[in-house]
Amino acid sequence: MNKRWTFLLAGVLAACGDVTVEHSVDAAAVERPKIRIDTDEVYSATSVGQYKGSHDDIYRHIDANLDGHLVNIQRWLRQPSISAQNTGIREMAELLRDDLLAIGFQEAELVPTDGHPGVWGYYDAGAEKTLMLYLMYDVQPVDPEDWQSPPFAAELVEHELGTVLMARGATNQKGPQRAFLNAVQSIIDVRGELPVNLMVAAEGEEELGSPHYPQIIDRYEERLKAADGAIFPFNSQRPDGSLSLLLGVKGIIYFELEARGNAGGGPTRAEIHGSYKALVDSPVLHLIQAIASMTSKDGNTIVIPGYYDGIRPPNEEEQVLMNGVLATSNDDDVKASLGVDTWLDGLTGADAITELLFMPTLNVDGIWAGYTGEGTKTILPHMATAKLDSRLPPGIDPEEALQKIRNHLDANGFADIEMRRMSAYPAAQTSVNSPLVQAAIGVGNKYTERVSVNPRIAGSAPFYQFTERLGIPMVPFGIGYGTGAHAPNEFMLIEPKPESPVAGLAEIEKSYVDLLYALAEK
Amino acid sequence: MNKRWTFLLAGVLAACGDVTVEHSVDAAAVERPKIRIDTDEVYSATSVGQYKGSHDDIYRHIDANLDGHLVNIQRWLRQPSISAQNTGIREMAELLRDDLLAIGFQEAELVPTDGHPGVWGYYDAGAEKTLMLYLMYDVQPVDPEDWQSPPFAAELVEHELGTVLMARGATNQKGPQRAFLNAVQSIIDVRGELPVNLMVAAEGEEELGSPHYPQIIDRYEERLKAADGAIFPFNSQRPDGSLSLLLGVKGIIYFELEARGNAGGGPTRAEIHGSYKALVDSPVLHLIQAIASMTSKDGNTIVIPGYYDGIRPPNEEEQVLMNGVLATSNDDDVKASLGVDTWLDGLTGADAITELLFMPTLNVDGIWAGYTGEGTKTILPHMATAKLDSRLPPGIDPEEALQKIRNHLDANGFADIEMRRMSAYPAAQTSVNSPLVQAAIGVGNKYTERVSVNPRIAGSAPFYQFTERLGIPMVPFGIGYGTGAHAPNEFMLIEPKPESPVAGLAEIEKSYVDLLYALAEK
Repeated sequence: MNKRWTFLLAGVLAACGDVTVEHSVDAAAVERPKIRIDTDEVYSATSVGQYKGSHDDIYRHIDANLDGHLVNIQRWLRQPSISAQNTGIREMAELLRDDLLAIGFQEAELVPTDGHPGVWGYYDAGAEKTLMLYLMYDVQPVDPEDWQSPPFAAELVEHELGTVLMARGATNQKGPQRAFLNAVQSIIDVRGELPVNLMVAAEGEEELGSPHYPQIIDRYEERLKAADGAIFPFNSQRPDGSLSLLLGVKGIIYFELEARGNAGGGPTRAEIHGSYKALVDSPVLHLIQAIASMTSKDGNTIVIPGYYDGIRPPNEEEQVLMNGVLATSNDDDVKASLGVDTWLDGLTGADAITELLFMPTLNVDGIWAGYTGEGTKTILPHMATAKLDSRLPPGIDPEEALQKIRNHLDANGFADIEMRRMSAYPAAQTSVNSPLVQAAIGVGNKYTERVSVNPRIAGSAPFYQFTERLGIPMVPFGIGYGTGAHAPNEFMLIEPKPESPVAGLAEIEKSYVDLLYALAEK
Repeated sequence: MNKRWTFLLAGVLAACGDVTVEHSVDAAAVERPKIRIDTDEVYSATSVGQYKGSHDDIYRHIDANLDGHLVNIQRWLRQPSISAQNTGIREMAELLRDDLLAIGFQEAELVPTDGHPGVWGYYDAGAEKTLMLYLMYDVQPVDPEDWQSPPFAAELVEHELGTVLMARGATNQKGPQRAFLNAVQSIIDVRGELPVNLMVAAEGEEELGSPHYPQIIDRYEERLKAADGAIFPFNSQRPDGSLSLLLGVKGIIYFELEARGNAGGGPTRAEIHGSYKALVDSPVLHLIQAIASMTSKDGNTIVIPGYYDGIRPPNEEEQVLMNGVLATSNDDDVKASLGVDTWLDGLTGADAITELLFMPTLNVDGIWAGYTGEGTKTILPHMATAKLDSRLPPGIDPEEALQKIRNHLDANGFADIEMRRMSAYPAAQTSVNSPLVQAAIGVGNKYTERVSVNPRIAGSAPFYQFTERLGIPMVPFGIGYGTGAHAPNEFMLIEPKPESPVAGLAEIEKSYVDLLYALAEK
């Protein structure tokens, strides 16, 4: 999964207020809308209660077959599948398809795309409810020399938390995904049938930003729309045992802006001597002025006309959830972990969490031009480039946002600046009241001391495919713990030390069993 | 010599106008002063006439000893003296000192500085006039594999222009400098005495930006002030035979601006996830806004209060010289050679040359921050850095310019942005009417078809040490041709093909003989 994705909720603060969204569309003095919370009601996951079902026959089967289940995960981990390098991709896609067939899926096939293939699977249990599984079978690249155990050896390693399975993909995402299928297999082995139908729509390009996942959805769209929800198996516990559920993500547009000398001015071929600035336009200053024109002087308010239009104010549910986050978190801890001394404008509490979750951003991820080495070199560069992104809360359409930026540039003397779109998708939101999320919270309450429900993260993931396009609830879900995604020594905790508040492999699989039954019973 | 230095005059255009400098100090809507030419008088170097003296006995001596003179140059070129790598520096300084003693200088000594040593020499001819020689004994680094003849072999190579001497330093600057000393030696050998006294003040750090040259001047300042002028031996002919004299340079300030997260906001330790932009100040946008605040939206007018104050309008002499440049040059050729389609604001002719030579600039030489690789990475960088320079015409003091920038940043919310000064020195100007320049033009007229006299170049060199500090005229001077300074296959033309309009070594040395007599006779 992408980094933006392993990132957990930031707006973890403390206070309450009252609600409104005020729009200002005066380009000359744009102000950010003020978003307020006007309820004192505080969400607590305990209101859902614990999932009461018990499936001891299946739990016993899992305990008895745990060694084999671990081998299943290791088999996946020992098959490299690095999407960025096209290493082992087809082999892994076929391994996933074959495992689905072996488990008893009636349909399992590779799905051609313009990139790496997807994998489709369907298990018809003749059940009333259908659960969609979003899976990714690709992993990040590795630098093997940085690992204490080889990244594709998938060996058990002793760690201070207990026995861990160390490998690229151990937690991101093969470990929890194969654990889920182990649970599915166990139900079928013991009961002969699943309580819900399953649809698998897996991709091999998540680490590339899911560029062709929409093509996979295309093929099964009408069938997928009938699902009751989608989950993404995930080790969502923290070392303290608490379980975090994330119900929404912001959208994002990511683009490059590039200024070059052209017929209107500036050096067109290459850098020229810096003294010519007296007679020659500077593409670097042109880009700087263009970016500067998009924000207030402090860089924190987007002054592009209408950019804040359409922000959907937090509904009652979101306000109550935000109050829940505010009641149990401390933003000083978040600031300390980031190395940030103060939020912008000195925001705190409810003001900070609403800003984080409901405001679009404009951020410069990188900029470069000219001479960047030691000492002095006096040149007038012929080009300058910047990477920018804008995070979009619900209500702001990515295509409209891109168009407003283009219009703004055109209207302010920057029509010659090239805008290269690199990514664009909207926010996604799932309701805490959806049966899938209610089932997930109930199961979470059964296995952990505390479930925190975050209405949204400030980061982005293309979950709109599920929530907006297919119109179904979607939640990453799972107990268990892992770390090291995108880093050396990635692992998933398999057998925690006895005093640990975190689940091991057996409990993880049992909780997935419970989730399927809990959903069936909703 | 530095690149800024080998660069020749750009403002080579066509037209006339009328003069004024209008200052605007309204920071809100600053306009660049309008500088106009209000005379139709056109300078022509032919008005000076040719130097009439003839020194056949010395010329014959040069012709008879030319092989030995070439060996003298080769001896210098075969001694590497790369200042940036401290390679052969002391050996070259001692070689220069020893050559001065061998020629008959009564004083010749190394001058300690905080960097590489200088070399001082004095030849007392008991003459009325004294000429200062500015010499540099260091050279640029080399990539030997790029050379057709090894850079320190100093071999004669056949070239389409004739026989050339190929080596690092051949034209920049050992070749013309040792040719000058060959001429001096020849006069002494034939006449027993020089027509002028000579003061040598050489440095070994020109390629580093002359950071310690002021320390060399310090030691001999009172004596140097008595000189009648300074020359820098230079192969100033173009392949078409024309000789270009440059009478002035702009000053420069070069500095880095750096924004970092700090107690006031932004990430202080390292980049953070880009989605935090909703709550965290961006040092990149902070730097962009700071730089943007310094110029008009088109990047071409400096809106820092008072930045244009003090510009000295072109005097009568400069106007006449500019008209001379305008009459003989074509700015379309310059634009084509640079790959620039249009000067800023569509300037042409007199408007362009006055802008080039009399207006300060603000230029971004480089800028960098965050992620600059392929694809997308969503980060909020903790720092951003830019390199800027400002070229300063006569009348603008570099210390005041730096202070105005600092004050502007402080007054506009950018007090936390660090400003790192890297270079700062004022413009330098020599009058065409000074006896040294009149002598140089007369000698130029004797040996070439056309001498063009440029009142100033838009580039910078620290010649204020001569013109402003010592108060003496200074001009880089010499016939002959060379190229490849700072590049592979640097050479100086020694024996041009018969039809060539460019001087070879013998003529170069004869012209230096003439220059010394011409100056003595002024």
